[in-house]
Amino acid sequence: MSDVQVVDAERAGGFPCVVAALDVGGTKIAGALVRYAASDTAPVVEARRAVPTKAARGGAAVLETLSALAGELVAAGATDGQAVVGVGVGTAGRVDARTGSIAYANEIMPGWTGQPVAAHLREVLGLPVAVLNDVQAHALGEARWGAAQGADTCLMVAAGTGLGGAIIAHGRVLRGAHGFAGEVGHTLSPDAAGVRCVCGGTSHLESVASGSGIEERYRAAGGEALSGAEIAERAAAGDELARQVIELAGSSLGEAIAGWASMLDPELVVLAGSVLNAGPLWRDALHEGYARQTPETLRSLPLVDAQLKGDAPLIGAAENLLDFLGARD
Amino acid sequence: MSDVQVVDAERAGGFPCVVAALDVGGTKIAGALVRYAASDTAPVVEARRAVPTKAARGGAAVLETLSALAGELVAAGATDGQAVVGVGVGTAGRVDARTGSIAYANEIMPGWTGQPVAAHLREVLGLPVAVLNDVQAHALGEARWGAAQGADTCLMVAAGTGLGGAIIAHGRVLRGAHGFAGEVGHTLSPDAAGVRCVCGGTSHLESVASGSGIEERYRAAGGEALSGAEIAERAAAGDELARQVIELAGSSLGEAIAGWASMLDPELVVLAGSVLNAGPLWRDALHEGYARQTPETLRSLPLVDAQLKGDAPLIGAAENLLDFLGARD
Repeated sequence: MSDVQVVDAERAGGFPCVVAALDVGGTKIAGALVRYAASDTAPVVEARRAVPTKAARGGAAVLETLSALAGELVAAGATDGQAVVGVGVGTAGRVDARTGSIAYANEIMPGWTGQPVAAHLREVLGLPVAVLNDVQAHALGEARWGAAQGADTCLMVAAGTGLGGAIIAHGRVLRGAHGFAGEVGHTLSPDAAGVRCVCGGTSHLESVASGSGIEERYRAAGGEALSGAEIAERAAAGDELARQVIELAGSSLGEAIAGWASMLDPELVVLAGSVLNAGPLWRDALHEGYARQTPETLRSLPLVDAQLKGDAPLIGAAENLLDFLGARD
Repeated sequence: MSDVQVVDAERAGGFPCVVAALDVGGTKIAGALVRYAASDTAPVVEARRAVPTKAARGGAAVLETLSALAGELVAAGATDGQAVVGVGVGTAGRVDARTGSIAYANEIMPGWTGQPVAAHLREVLGLPVAVLNDVQAHALGEARWGAAQGADTCLMVAAGTGLGGAIIAHGRVLRGAHGFAGEVGHTLSPDAAGVRCVCGGTSHLESVASGSGIEERYRAAGGEALSGAEIAERAAAGDELARQVIELAGSSLGEAIAGWASMLDPELVVLAGSVLNAGPLWRDALHEGYARQTPETLRSLPLVDAQLKGDAPLIGAAENLLDFLGARD
């Protein structure tokens, strides 16, 4: 399926160039100019800014906020004397790869579902626009200029409140048929046997390995209602129940990574998200779980942490726009 | 990682053309000419032939047999007045995507590991050669001219003696970092909890959903030592133990497909392999398992049977050669 988000836009390519990049989350919308001196030099992220998403005001209002911020960036680029070649957006929710509209967003962003992000920005700004999911953007940023630089095949696992991910295949982010590719959280896990998942299925990895899964497992086992970070602190301090929950989160994820690695044969796996801060108990369990389930041939697969932090989704959104323009073909 | 199997070969492309295609299995080596009238018309498979692999004679002897058969096909093509543009090979075992050598083959083909298939055929025949795993070849054939024609993202699941698979991403077969991509059999399955897998891990899907898994589960539950086909017959005839084993094979595979679909967001899933003949009990359990674990958005994902039968790996091997030559760029 070809990407026809902006079917009649001029598909200009070439370097040097500047892209307006935006990252839409539930609490804030971040934006920046991503400046490329050449195709093979690391982009410079500049003119950073951020505004509150005010998600409760609804999807149409969020789209106006996004549009205004994108307009500011385009204007800032023009002031610098180098016209912005297009707008790259990474956003929470599932993005229709064909239209650049929001196919689905959860209750954190009411009314974001259905918003025609690419079409609206293009109409307002008169520039090519490419939109993808924020985790996919993060992975693409890391694959081009971060922890997975130059990787042709790569899996990113994002363990935060939920458990998401993204796949790089043939050097490009895998969007899938509907733009949903990379949702690793609904992989079956024997460690989650019988636990109901938010998606409606049962025994899914997200129920034990995500931040919210850690919190729920701790409560279900008789612990208090604490945040994942607090549970990790207690585990480090010797709380036996907390230790069990944190270690299960690590080992179940490590075991699942072995299965995904066997399936995708990636050059490396990039780990991202707040759960990475759960400490050495979690990390040791992750590596032990991986080693337990992976075949000999994949034992030395690098499992590395993401490098680009908050810039990754912006750089990835910019790279997706460059792919869309054919600038990297 | 770029494919450098034949770094200095002339990368001729263009249609019409004829490719010599070969499919190396543990019992026979099949070969044919795959003839293309144009880039967008279905290829014609002709001049079919097959010889015994005689795997016990060792890898070097198998390579000579393969080389002789490939030479016959090239000569046959020349006789017809249209020179063969190159040789496409699909083979049992894992193929190093960079060199076209056999990275690993199991005991069914002793000494096949390490054989420099691409380099040897190229030296003998003086033609470009591209080699890939036989399941990957099968999937590529189906994706280009069979059940998944035109698919950009597709998963093929091959349930035979073992449980394998292949992934089509961005319209091309995903080789992965070492050429191993698509090995879905080592996905964790709650239904296989605690069962030791041949790979060294535990709780892997292959132990319950493959043909050998069906046979072992039946024996482990107190049944006789029967073939998978015999167990399926008994299940259909009302044998309760056989029914349980066959239904578990179907439902565990269906549940796993839901996880893979969530991860890859394919346009469809293609099913192949002898286990597809296990009958309606197996098939109903497969679809029920899938429905139980898949999110609403993927409920209507087509799960379809492969169409091209024995021609699929040959057509896929030919398509891989065309990709290698850049003929489909």
